[in-house]
Amino acid sequence: MKAIAVEPGAGEPALVERPRPEPEPGEALVRTLRVGIDGTDHEVIAGHHGNLPAGADRLVLGHEAVGVVEEPNGTELEAGEFVVPTVRRPPGRSNEFFERGEPDMAPEGEYLERGIVGAHGFMAEYVTSPAEYLVSIPPELAELGFLVEPISISEKAIEHAVATRSAFDWTPETALVLGNGPLGLLTLAMFESVLDIDRTYCLGRRDRSHPTVELVEDLGATYVDSRETSVSEIPDAHEAVDLVYEATGHAKHAFETVDALAPNGVGVLLGVPEPWEFEVDGGRLHRELVLHNKALLGTVNSHRGHFEAAIDTLSQLPEWFTDELVTGVYDLDEYTEAFKDGDDVVKTAVEFDAPAGGF
Amino acid sequence: MKAIAVEPGAGEPALVERPRPEPEPGEALVRTLRVGIDGTDHEVIAGHHGNLPAGADRLVLGHEAVGVVEEPNGTELEAGEFVVPTVRRPPGRSNEFFERGEPDMAPEGEYLERGIVGAHGFMAEYVTSPAEYLVSIPPELAELGFLVEPISISEKAIEHAVATRSAFDWTPETALVLGNGPLGLLTLAMFESVLDIDRTYCLGRRDRSHPTVELVEDLGATYVDSRETSVSEIPDAHEAVDLVYEATGHAKHAFETVDALAPNGVGVLLGVPEPWEFEVDGGRLHRELVLHNKALLGTVNSHRGHFEAAIDTLSQLPEWFTDELVTGVYDLDEYTEAFKDGDDVVKTAVEFDAPAGGF
Repeated sequence: MKAIAVEPGAGEPALVERPRPEPEPGEALVRTLRVGIDGTDHEVIAGHHGNLPAGADRLVLGHEAVGVVEEPNGTELEAGEFVVPTVRRPPGRSNEFFERGEPDMAPEGEYLERGIVGAHGFMAEYVTSPAEYLVSIPPELAELGFLVEPISISEKAIEHAVATRSAFDWTPETALVLGNGPLGLLTLAMFESVLDIDRTYCLGRRDRSHPTVELVEDLGATYVDSRETSVSEIPDAHEAVDLVYEATGHAKHAFETVDALAPNGVGVLLGVPEPWEFEVDGGRLHRELVLHNKALLGTVNSHRGHFEAAIDTLSQLPEWFTDELVTGVYDLDEYTEAFKDGDDVVKTAVEFDAPAGGF
Repeated sequence: MKAIAVEPGAGEPALVERPRPEPEPGEALVRTLRVGIDGTDHEVIAGHHGNLPAGADRLVLGHEAVGVVEEPNGTELEAGEFVVPTVRRPPGRSNEFFERGEPDMAPEGEYLERGIVGAHGFMAEYVTSPAEYLVSIPPELAELGFLVEPISISEKAIEHAVATRSAFDWTPETALVLGNGPLGLLTLAMFESVLDIDRTYCLGRRDRSHPTVELVEDLGATYVDSRETSVSEIPDAHEAVDLVYEATGHAKHAFETVDALAPNGVGVLLGVPEPWEFEVDGGRLHRELVLHNKALLGTVNSHRGHFEAAIDTLSQLPEWFTDELVTGVYDLDEYTEAFKDGDDVVKTAVEFDAPAGGF
């Protein structure tokens, strides 16, 4: 079967031939339909993140997948059922995090990540997976099933942010998304369409002609150009916000978030920057966190419950939004197009196959 | 009646004569028994924090009080009932925070604080208060009732820290208190005696001969001398911890807390430092927060529910601990002793009166 893999140092993915996997007991065989591409894939390709499976000389990419069960292999799944696989897997032996269904809370070394850390991904015509890591998705959503994984990341982030404020009466009226990439835009759409937050803002560094800026404004949010207004200046330029969602990986944003927050607000960080030393007014930030009961937290990955919530969220996102967000779905023979960046590119996916009757 | 007040610029408190207050409708008249002194009082005296009541030329000090109801004045309280007053009051008009019983979440400008911000405190032979801000305390605990307010601060901090981790399975096994002042020691005792945390650490900058170091060790905790081991070095020197409680006001500690935390840990900040610029590895801190699901939050003040919890906690603290913690309770005629710092001073209070039968 065909797969899209990357060799360390190659700097770009390649189409490779691999044996079709055989499901072990408890595993189902899944025929892959579509796999989305995100910033993590580009980091893996560039060699900045992730690592090879033990003994392998290349890594099959892909962690945002949707497929159809080809062979249930005695599991509770049914042939023809559409499924989205979760990403983390136990590192050989299981551990407490997997046992309680919280692999997203496992520290480094206690998990593999398919397509990223030590385990092949889903960019292959067929994949196998334990049934417990396959989440059923309604047929009508399968076409966009590759958006479930990124949405699940935000489901977790929002769940944790809300938990942080659960000891008192807190209803966010305003939210700010830092970053207008696909994850930022999906989260902005969740804030606008699902969580019904009154006023939303999205910070980016794109000219107003860029399609993502139009998307931000079509969602009803206010676009903030970071080249004109810094995160710290947002309270003066617009208003202090109850919730900040950071998806830029720009380390200064983590600290400026404290300035952007209204009293009792929470900032949730998702970016993964490299080491970077800079000066902060640590006294002022510390004081501001305390005197205004502010919180800052990081979250990574997501668990099965977040995938289930994400499927529900996906069903509520407006069709015009996902139509504009997904700027390209490419067949396997033109997969290189899906990895290209460009001024009109927002979110892309590779299509390995379509369901029997088409999407 | 006599009161202890401070004039701006005086730099030390003075005994003054004031008219005995008359309770308004809904208020009770309370005869003050004991009032504790903490770092905030010293900041108010030094003029670094707080402000005068409108029109006043001096501020009656004191926010850690216990008293006895002298005149219920038609409220639900009974004469002779022991009570601890809460600290925040509405700024003239009420607001949403007071209406829902969460004055601790009110932003600056939306509250007064008795003895600190714009309202006279409790260091007077008699005080009045709306009955809703007086929390009943059992007679046998009245002697130490001045510890309820500081404990309530930690009740809130711990409640918020635990809420932050409520979206997943989290049981802290290790905790680190930054600061071996009275608030740090009370919190350490809560961790050891009430929350039953397995292994606790307390960071200070005192020689081993200091009585607080003995207290730390008698509680079963490990003392960490910050002059030998920085907060960031604690994971290597001891172990990474699930919970950090910062009560030093040293701004670098807020950032070093991220290093000291174990994966999925939470740091709760209570110090109120002045502005201070310094360099941090913001990239590494941001990355560490995200990849290990860490959280950092500030909390300030406490509400009535926290005072009630604090009374329960006080009843569970070992007697030997409170005996060693409270190094001096001084009568009104020697009140200046209570404000003195010294190598053998930990926690002090001024005694305005004793109950009819004595404590």
